[in-house]
Amino acid sequence: MTAKNAFYAQSGGVTAVINASAAGLIESAREHGDAIGKVYAGRDGIVGALTEQLIDTSVESADDIAALKYTPAGIFGSARYKLKGLDDNKAEYERLIEVFKAHDIGYFFYNGGGDSADTCLKVSQIADTMGYPIQAIHIPKTMDNDLPHTDCSPGFGSVAKYTAVSIREAGYDLHSMCKTSTKVFILEVMGRNAGWTAAAGGLAAEAEGDAPHILLFPEVRFDRERFLAKVDEAVKRNGYCAIVASEGVEIDKDFERGDGRPADAFGHAQLGGVAPELARIIKSELGYKFHYAIADYLMRAARHIASATDVEQAYAVGRAAVDFAMAGKSGVMVTIKRESDEPYRWSIGEAPLDEVANVEKTMPRDFISKDGFHITDTARRYLKPLIAGESYPPYVDGLPAYAKLKSQAVPRRLHTDFKV
Amino acid sequence: MTAKNAFYAQSGGVTAVINASAAGLIESAREHGDAIGKVYAGRDGIVGALTEQLIDTSVESADDIAALKYTPAGIFGSARYKLKGLDDNKAEYERLIEVFKAHDIGYFFYNGGGDSADTCLKVSQIADTMGYPIQAIHIPKTMDNDLPHTDCSPGFGSVAKYTAVSIREAGYDLHSMCKTSTKVFILEVMGRNAGWTAAAGGLAAEAEGDAPHILLFPEVRFDRERFLAKVDEAVKRNGYCAIVASEGVEIDKDFERGDGRPADAFGHAQLGGVAPELARIIKSELGYKFHYAIADYLMRAARHIASATDVEQAYAVGRAAVDFAMAGKSGVMVTIKRESDEPYRWSIGEAPLDEVANVEKTMPRDFISKDGFHITDTARRYLKPLIAGESYPPYVDGLPAYAKLKSQAVPRRLHTDFKV
Repeated sequence: MTAKNAFYAQSGGVTAVINASAAGLIESAREHGDAIGKVYAGRDGIVGALTEQLIDTSVESADDIAALKYTPAGIFGSARYKLKGLDDNKAEYERLIEVFKAHDIGYFFYNGGGDSADTCLKVSQIADTMGYPIQAIHIPKTMDNDLPHTDCSPGFGSVAKYTAVSIREAGYDLHSMCKTSTKVFILEVMGRNAGWTAAAGGLAAEAEGDAPHILLFPEVRFDRERFLAKVDEAVKRNGYCAIVASEGVEIDKDFERGDGRPADAFGHAQLGGVAPELARIIKSELGYKFHYAIADYLMRAARHIASATDVEQAYAVGRAAVDFAMAGKSGVMVTIKRESDEPYRWSIGEAPLDEVANVEKTMPRDFISKDGFHITDTARRYLKPLIAGESYPPYVDGLPAYAKLKSQAVPRRLHTDFKV
Repeated sequence: MTAKNAFYAQSGGVTAVINASAAGLIESAREHGDAIGKVYAGRDGIVGALTEQLIDTSVESADDIAALKYTPAGIFGSARYKLKGLDDNKAEYERLIEVFKAHDIGYFFYNGGGDSADTCLKVSQIADTMGYPIQAIHIPKTMDNDLPHTDCSPGFGSVAKYTAVSIREAGYDLHSMCKTSTKVFILEVMGRNAGWTAAAGGLAAEAEGDAPHILLFPEVRFDRERFLAKVDEAVKRNGYCAIVASEGVEIDKDFERGDGRPADAFGHAQLGGVAPELARIIKSELGYKFHYAIADYLMRAARHIASATDVEQAYAVGRAAVDFAMAGKSGVMVTIKRESDEPYRWSIGEAPLDEVANVEKTMPRDFISKDGFHITDTARRYLKPLIAGESYPPYVDGLPAYAKLKSQAVPRRLHTDFKV
C-alpha cells in the first residue's frame, strides 16, 4: 500500500472547538505514515482545493498542532461555499480531481455541518461517477446542533456552556439591579432555525425563580400576548425577568429585521435582531426598563469557556475520521453515540452521508415545556453532560495564548487558475 | 470603646467583583469585633437604609462570605438612587439618622462609583450638620474606570479582560470566515462617556494585523468618512476588520438610538445601539458583510473570566475600608495607587470624597493613537497589568457555583414607613 496524501478542510461557520478536530485528525494521520502521507489543509476550506491553495500541515510542530486543541475558530480558514450538483457544474468536480491528482490526494476529510455534508457526499461519489479513487469522510461540526444521526454536534457543547454561564451571570446582575433599575434582560443567541442554544440557557435555572425565566425557541410559534403575560408574571414574582431568545424566532410575519441583510452562500438568511424587537414590545406594552445583549460571534468563538466534554468529542471525531479512512470507509460521517446519561458515556458511531446532507434536526417537542417557554427534564438530561467540565486555554499577560501556525503553502503544481 | 454596628451598601451598576469588596469588608470587620458589632447590608443599596430593610450578614457562614469573592453582581442588591442635597430633601437625612440610631450604626461603608461617592460624602457630613456621629467611607467600584484619584476602579480590570479576550476570539472567528463571508465585526461595549473598556480591547492586538483593528472612543469625535476609510483599509490589508465601539460614541448628532430609552435615576441616558448603526453605515457605504455583538450586562457580570488582579484589588479595598474606619477616618474613598508598571506593584491610598464625587475621569489624550482609532504604548503599559491573571470560580455540573446567601432580615425597630 502506497501512502496517499490527505486533504482536510473546514467548512461553514466555525466553532470554539473545530480546531480540536483538526488536531485529532492531524495527530492520528501522523501515526499512520504507512498509509497517509501529508495532510494538506484547504486554505479557506474547499475554496483552497479549487484554487490549489493548500497548506502543508507537515511543517507544523507537534506542539503547534496540539495547541489547536485550545484554539477557537478555523485555523486554516473556513468557507461558506457549497458545490453544485455534478450536472450543474461539472467543471468544479473536474477541477477538484485535477488538484487531487496533482497532489496525490486519496483522502478527503471535510469538517462541517449539514450543508457541508452534502459537499462531502458529492466528493465521495467522484470515485464512482468520475473514476477518481478517493475516500471522503465527514467530520461533524456545528454550534447549531442541528445535524441528524449524531447525539450531538461538536461545537454545540461549548456554545451551550457559554449561554448557560452567561445567562446565569446576567441573572445575578439583573437580580441586583431590579429594585430601582432594569427589570428585563434579553440575551439573543445564534442557532438558526433550531432552539438548541436557547434550550441550553435553560440549564442555568436550577431552582425556583432562577434565571432564565423565559426561553424563546424557533420551534414554538411566537405569541405576543402570551409572551407579554409571561414576562409580566416573572417580573411580578421575582422582581425581574431574564430571557434567552433564539435568533430564529419569528416575532412578526411582517417584522423587518431592519438592516436588509442578505442570505449567505448557503442560501440562509442572515438572522439577528430579535432582542431589540422584543425589548421594544416589552417597553411599549409593559413599560419595564430593559437591557439586552446580542452574543453573536462571541459565543461560538468563546474558547475561554469551552465545555471539556465538547473539546474531547471534537478531538475524538477528528481521530475517528482517520480510523474510518484506514478501515476503507467513504461517504460516511463520524457520529457521537450516547451510551448513557448519568454517568455520561458516549462512543463513536457512523452515519451514511446521504441521510445527513441538508437535513436539519430541530428540538423534539418533549424537550420543550408545555407552555413553550422553557425546557423539560428530558431536555436537561440530554443537555447537562454536554456542558460538563472546563477546558481552559493557557494565558500569557492576561490573554489566551491561541495558536498561530506557519500555514506554509504547498508549492503549486498546476499552472491554471480556477475562478470560484 | 463600645462596638458600633456597620452599614454596608452596594450602589449603582454592579460588577463582576463588587462582592469581593463585600467579602473583604465583612471578613475584616469580623476581625475587629471590639470596635465593629455586626455588619448590616442595605437590601437594594441605600434604599434598604431608608426603608429599614437591612440584611444581617452576621448569620452568614465564613464559607459563604468567602464565596462572595467569586460571585458576580451585587449579592445584597444595588440601587440607582442618589440622595438629594440636604436642603432639597432633609427628610431623607433625618430618616437615615433615625434608622442608624435604631440599629446603633456608627460606620457607613458605601460601595459605588462617582455618583455614589456624592451620597457617601453627604452622609459623612451628617456628623457635622446634624450632629449624628458616623464615619462614612467610600469603597470604589465601577466597570467604567471613570473614578478620579484612583489608578483604577475595581470592576474595570474584569470587563477589560472580558473585552480583550472576546475581541481576540471574535477576531480568530472573523479571520476564518472572511474569504467567503463576514468581513466586518463590531463589538459594542459599555462604559458610558469614557473609552476605557474599548481601550482594553486594544490589548488583544499584539502583532501587526491582529484584531481589533479599530477602536472607537467617546473621547474622539466620530468622523464618518475617516472611519469608513479606516475600515476599508483594514479589510483590504487583512481580509477583515474587527472593531470595538464604546456605547458612548456619538455617531450622528441627530442619530436616534431608536428605542427611546429613558435616562436612569442618576440622570444618565441609557446608551447602546452603536454597533447596528455602524454596521448599517458600513454595509451601505462599503457593502461588506458584517456581524455585530452587544456585550451589555454579559461583560460586567462575567465573573467566569474575571481578572485576578481585579479580584485581588476589589477584596483589598473592602478590607482597607475597615482599616480606614479603625483609623478614625471619614469622608474619604479608598484608592489604588500604582507603584510601578512592570513588575506591577500597587498599594492602598485615599482621596477626599469632595474631590471624587461627580467627577468623571475620561481617557488621557496620550492613551489614544494619533489617528484616534487605537491605543498607544502608554495606554498598554497602564492597561496590561489590570487584566493579568485568571481567577476562576468553582463549577458544578458545568456551571459556576455562585454564592446564594441567607439574606436574613434584621428585625425592624421602627414602626414607620418611608417612601423612596
